[in-house]
Amino acid sequence: MKNPICDMLGIEFPLVAFSHCRDVVAAVSKAGGMGVFGGVNCTPETLEEELSWIDDHVDGKPYGLDIIVPNKVEGKGEQIDVDTTLAMIPDKHKQFSKDIMARHGVDPGDLEELRREHAVGADNLRGGNAGALLEVAFRHPIKLIANALGIPPQVMTDMGREHGVPVAALIGTKEHAMSQVAAGVDILIAVGGEAGGHTGDVATMVLIPEVCNALRDIGDDTPVLAAGGIATGSQMAAAMAMGASGVWCGSVWLTTAEAETNPVVKEKMLSATSRDTVRARSRTGKPSRQLRSPWTDAWEAEEAPRPLPMPLQSLVAEPPLRSIDKLSQGDNQGAKDLATYWVGQGVGLMNQPMSTAQVVQGFKEDFIAAYERLAANLEE
Amino acid sequence: MKNPICDMLGIEFPLVAFSHCRDVVAAVSKAGGMGVFGGVNCTPETLEEELSWIDDHVDGKPYGLDIIVPNKVEGKGEQIDVDTTLAMIPDKHKQFSKDIMARHGVDPGDLEELRREHAVGADNLRGGNAGALLEVAFRHPIKLIANALGIPPQVMTDMGREHGVPVAALIGTKEHAMSQVAAGVDILIAVGGEAGGHTGDVATMVLIPEVCNALRDIGDDTPVLAAGGIATGSQMAAAMAMGASGVWCGSVWLTTAEAETNPVVKEKMLSATSRDTVRARSRTGKPSRQLRSPWTDAWEAEEAPRPLPMPLQSLVAEPPLRSIDKLSQGDNQGAKDLATYWVGQGVGLMNQPMSTAQVVQGFKEDFIAAYERLAANLEE
Repeated sequence: MKNPICDMLGIEFPLVAFSHCRDVVAAVSKAGGMGVFGGVNCTPETLEEELSWIDDHVDGKPYGLDIIVPNKVEGKGEQIDVDTTLAMIPDKHKQFSKDIMARHGVDPGDLEELRREHAVGADNLRGGNAGALLEVAFRHPIKLIANALGIPPQVMTDMGREHGVPVAALIGTKEHAMSQVAAGVDILIAVGGEAGGHTGDVATMVLIPEVCNALRDIGDDTPVLAAGGIATGSQMAAAMAMGASGVWCGSVWLTTAEAETNPVVKEKMLSATSRDTVRARSRTGKPSRQLRSPWTDAWEAEEAPRPLPMPLQSLVAEPPLRSIDKLSQGDNQGAKDLATYWVGQGVGLMNQPMSTAQVVQGFKEDFIAAYERLAANLEE
Repeated sequence: MKNPICDMLGIEFPLVAFSHCRDVVAAVSKAGGMGVFGGVNCTPETLEEELSWIDDHVDGKPYGLDIIVPNKVEGKGEQIDVDTTLAMIPDKHKQFSKDIMARHGVDPGDLEELRREHAVGADNLRGGNAGALLEVAFRHPIKLIANALGIPPQVMTDMGREHGVPVAALIGTKEHAMSQVAAGVDILIAVGGEAGGHTGDVATMVLIPEVCNALRDIGDDTPVLAAGGIATGSQMAAAMAMGASGVWCGSVWLTTAEAETNPVVKEKMLSATSRDTVRARSRTGKPSRQLRSPWTDAWEAEEAPRPLPMPLQSLVAEPPLRSIDKLSQGDNQGAKDLATYWVGQGVGLMNQPMSTAQVVQGFKEDFIAAYERLAANLEE
């Protein structure tokens, strides 16, 4: 295929795959798309290890990296005290989590210990490591670097330019798109509200033409990757008919053979319809779309405490959810019931267990079928 | 264009326009699409009048009708007592509405009188008139009849079959689609959560392929019209690439020259982005998407009373909103601020005042451009 994204990234098929699983990343790149490794939870050491593994397994094909680099990375004045943070979590929220577990026969165990570990880990994300992560990243032959949150800092765009690596940023509104292009981003990833994880609420079907029109109006030719609910090649064709130059998909890889998704959650995803997700503040404090389970339902109920702001709500929700995740893989039925993970409405289209390469092949076939279906309407 | 919808409806271009404004209906049909008159608020007498007007102004082109016919129209045992209904509305809700008006310097006037009128009018909708409305409808040369709520009753599908008029039904989930085809509906209108008015929360981008796949899996060839957020020809091409045979649009006509939309609201819509809508229960008791205004914001606030179930919440919200609508067309700034109406996220793409014929022409040009854009990706 020939378009600005294929040219810029050096790929055949403009399907960009976001995954925390290096196997998925390598498999998508080898199949003609581009894998982008989600390195948000990495330290410089683990990132080095993951990217080296990908280098060894990607057959020289292009791949990318997605990290969070706060815009004010150079400030570094924002040291957070873990104890102070932990002390800010109301007992009510902790108790509510424990009660959900208890109602489902799940022993909460020592959540305080898990909570402290999580708080220390989260502290790493807040920019202290960003410089070191960028250094690791650019020692590897990455062909795309994406910033998962807000406007990339100058140091990131500078390093991208220096190494000839396009810098991408996620946006959820036309207004964000305008600020990102003003900041010099090379690729916009426009994420509709049906996406998994953190999302706005403008749907992909509206966001893509709205962003593309706004770019056209200012004479800007930054290419757009469409994201949000996209799990098939016909949706990819749809997004590209509306002006996107390709797609960015995350959820669809979660049910592949290679994915490290909890097998219990993988099964739930394969049988879920598009109605089985909820966009809620209860996991991180900001709206993020997740697979519905009795856990998310409990937090949506009238009597649930109001989710805390970021980063506090993660300290409420992650420790129990990680414990549930672990227990669900044994024979704890309550934990199996409660288990959940981030996923978009596209989960309703993910109904078959497949390898990553089969998903890419399916996209290609479905894309062509969609194009031919559209063309057939125009035949006399 | 050649496809099942064009064949079934006898039209050139599968753009179906839902409007309460007969001028829009006639103009779309004359421009090669199909206008569908929204007759939900009609009595048999006013419906006769509206359809006769359309007959006289549509140059023999096909048009349709959308009404609500409750599934149990023949029962008629559900007489509601207006006084009993009015007595069920808590003072808290009435007072909250008045307070919003007062804060914006709008005199509430006699809302009780308006409330009683609305309750009597709403009573008409509850099936008592359905038989008479259907009789009026089929005396006119309608080429489509759509049921706006639930599964059409047997009498409606029977009359459709007898007169050779396809029966369409609105759905918001794959499960609804399956029940509707089992009930013998001829056309499915799949409405994504970004639509104006009552909606589910599955986005158009996911709903269309999910419904089309489900139909394919049961070997059913009922054609699908895509709806929800669609205001341009490129979105129409996108929906058709995903398997729809055409689109059903409502919001896009609200800003046309012909539309009877309150001019104040029309202006707001033309300058709104896709973020300026809210899907809320505060207007009717069920989630419906509306233009945001300080009225909808007030009902979203923490301290707002919980919206009542249908039909009670309409009796809370409609009287003040109609009064606001009227006052906003004078020089009452508070009323101008509060004024709102149902509209989908596609409002972000409705930025130019145009005639209905221009909108249809724009769809055609944009559709071809989208098709060519998609095709260009496949050129060597």
